[in-house]
Amino acid sequence: MPLKSAVYVEKGRFELAEGKRLEPQAGEVTIRVGYVGLCGTDLHVYHGNMDHRVCPPGVIGHEMSGVIEAVANDVEGFAAGERVVVRPLDYCGDCPACSAGHSHICHNLKFMGIDTAGALQSYWTVKARTLHKLPANVDLRRGALVEPLAVACHDVARARVAAGEKVVVLGGGPIGQLIALVARARGADVLISEPTAVRRAYAANAGFATFDPATGDLAAHVMDWTGTKGADVVFEVAGVQATVSAMTDIAAVRGRICMVAIHSTKPQVDLFRFFWRELELVGARVYEAVDFDAAIALIASGQVDVDALITSVHPIDQVQAAFETLDSPDPGMKTLLECEA
Amino acid sequence: MPLKSAVYVEKGRFELAEGKRLEPQAGEVTIRVGYVGLCGTDLHVYHGNMDHRVCPPGVIGHEMSGVIEAVANDVEGFAAGERVVVRPLDYCGDCPACSAGHSHICHNLKFMGIDTAGALQSYWTVKARTLHKLPANVDLRRGALVEPLAVACHDVARARVAAGEKVVVLGGGPIGQLIALVARARGADVLISEPTAVRRAYAANAGFATFDPATGDLAAHVMDWTGTKGADVVFEVAGVQATVSAMTDIAAVRGRICMVAIHSTKPQVDLFRFFWRELELVGARVYEAVDFDAAIALIASGQVDVDALITSVHPIDQVQAAFETLDSPDPGMKTLLECEA
Ligand SMILES: [Zn+2]
Ligand SMILES: [Zn+2]
Ligand SMILES: [Zn+2]
Ligand SMILES: [Zn+2]
Repeated sequence: MPLKSAVYVEKGRFELAEGKRLEPQAGEVTIRVGYVGLCGTDLHVYHGNMDHRVCPPGVIGHEMSGVIEAVANDVEGFAAGERVVVRPLDYCGDCPACSAGHSHICHNLKFMGIDTAGALQSYWTVKARTLHKLPANVDLRRGALVEPLAVACHDVARARVAAGEKVVVLGGGPIGQLIALVARARGADVLISEPTAVRRAYAANAGFATFDPATGDLAAHVMDWTGTKGADVVFEVAGVQATVSAMTDIAAVRGRICMVAIHSTKPQVDLFRFFWRELELVGARVYEAVDFDAAIALIASGQVDVDALITSVHPIDQVQAAFETLDSPDPGMKTLLECEA
Repeated sequence: MPLKSAVYVEKGRFELAEGKRLEPQAGEVTIRVGYVGLCGTDLHVYHGNMDHRVCPPGVIGHEMSGVIEAVANDVEGFAAGERVVVRPLDYCGDCPACSAGHSHICHNLKFMGIDTAGALQSYWTVKARTLHKLPANVDLRRGALVEPLAVACHDVARARVAAGEKVVVLGGGPIGQLIALVARARGADVLISEPTAVRRAYAANAGFATFDPATGDLAAHVMDWTGTKGADVVFEVAGVQATVSAMTDIAAVRGRICMVAIHSTKPQVDLFRFFWRELELVGARVYEAVDFDAAIALIASGQVDVDALITSVHPIDQVQAAFETLDSPDPGMKTLLECEA
């Protein structure tokens, strides 16, 4: 079978093309790609909104798992045959953020699979410093969920969620559901607020309290749920004015609000409430190495079940159809493309 | 000389009236008031904006110093003749915030001097638990600055200002100047951004770097000042859309923004920037007991010179004239009223 790659050609169009296998250069490793998950960022590319970064035609994809095929001579600690995932961040090591130890927010960060070639191909050659090994009991399908789970681990860590706390997640898409799973694994009591019935059903099936903000008063519900205290932690994952308004309404005194959503406009924020209740807002972007370690440990230990979130798996040949489904009213939770040659 | 009180009668009008001396009840102490400072909150009362809380006619005033005149039998640790200041917070001890140890943000908080009678009178009777003693080398005039300095100590503590950090204060009014003084005492390098020339002159006289945001590009200036890193900490003290926009523009990766201003509208906030740079916003409201201790220590040690901020001292008889000046284009920094009988 020839090597394959899924190429983003232009707004709304992917094409299957022949793949290449680049030899690993100094510090690099070549991975035979297993599965690649698709997410909202990929959909953003499909919509043509990131052409300035992808520069089509280009191969995207950043949520992946695979098996090491080849390793450059100077790479230590990795060997062919090992099952790995990639933390798709390429940082400069030199800017004020890198110097302060925050290389995941490097001023010159390249996000692999957007700013540089991604994983939707048979072989992906990457820097060895991006790799994390999968334990024996985490298969490649689950491995493809490590990246989005690491996002959730980072969010939960940034919000300092502690056992016994009441947590509200505003938005029940894949990241919202993963945040809920991680927060519960940390001992929190989690409520997911989500207007879409099918997403509330996922949340309920996973054992979470749910609320439909379209048909009820979320603030009143949360005050009731918390005995008038308010939520210890709020995750704003939806990215709309309604959830930005809700986040300050439902937070307890000294409550922490974690900004996960990517806002393309500047919503109005109740800054009086920040003063009045001494609220805290923390932004969270991608992940650090420890978040990948945490995500892998949560899957390996069985504390987080990611299988339930995998709603479809297609061969890479069906990349166009997979994106069309992702763009439909019922996109499912997580779609994987199988790349293995 | 008869006992006096300055009574807020209605919007724009104070009247001098005869004062009372209430005997201290259980847990209470009666203070012979020395000096009372006026601030923006008092001006807000003068403008008639807080009548729903003050319920005029009423005695306001919350920045004060004095000498203990009488102590209830059950009060321990305080004696007549001791020089004290009052932390003017009356909390319930029972709500979720009090239970969580944040009584300064009590759900049922009464701010003394607004929600209950204040210090603009010859004698003020208060709960002993509100008192802090002044050391011998802090006179009553300086003592009247302890309350606003405690606000600044609280703000600087909430923002976790550390030695060597670059701090920008947006707004050079009395609280902005006090924040700058405390941040410098903590070892930070401070820039005050303020459009009013007379306030910039105060800041410059106190040895701070200053910037006029009306005539230059603050973001470019801060990036230059910090070697492209951005400010480690930003204090938003002005409460307008322009400073809310600036606060996210000038903060470094993982920068902390402290919300000191009281926003009466909901400004637009660049939430994308919170995500992108992992910024942090922390609200800060009034103070805790430790902040009063810190403020007193900063004055007593000479680390913070509050004398330079006291721009006028009037006898309580001139309360109306003092508020008229406070409401003028050149209000000075801090006006004290002398209440001593
Ligand atoms: Zn993704
Ligand atoms: Zn960098
Ligand atoms: Zn005040
Ligand atoms: Zn309380």
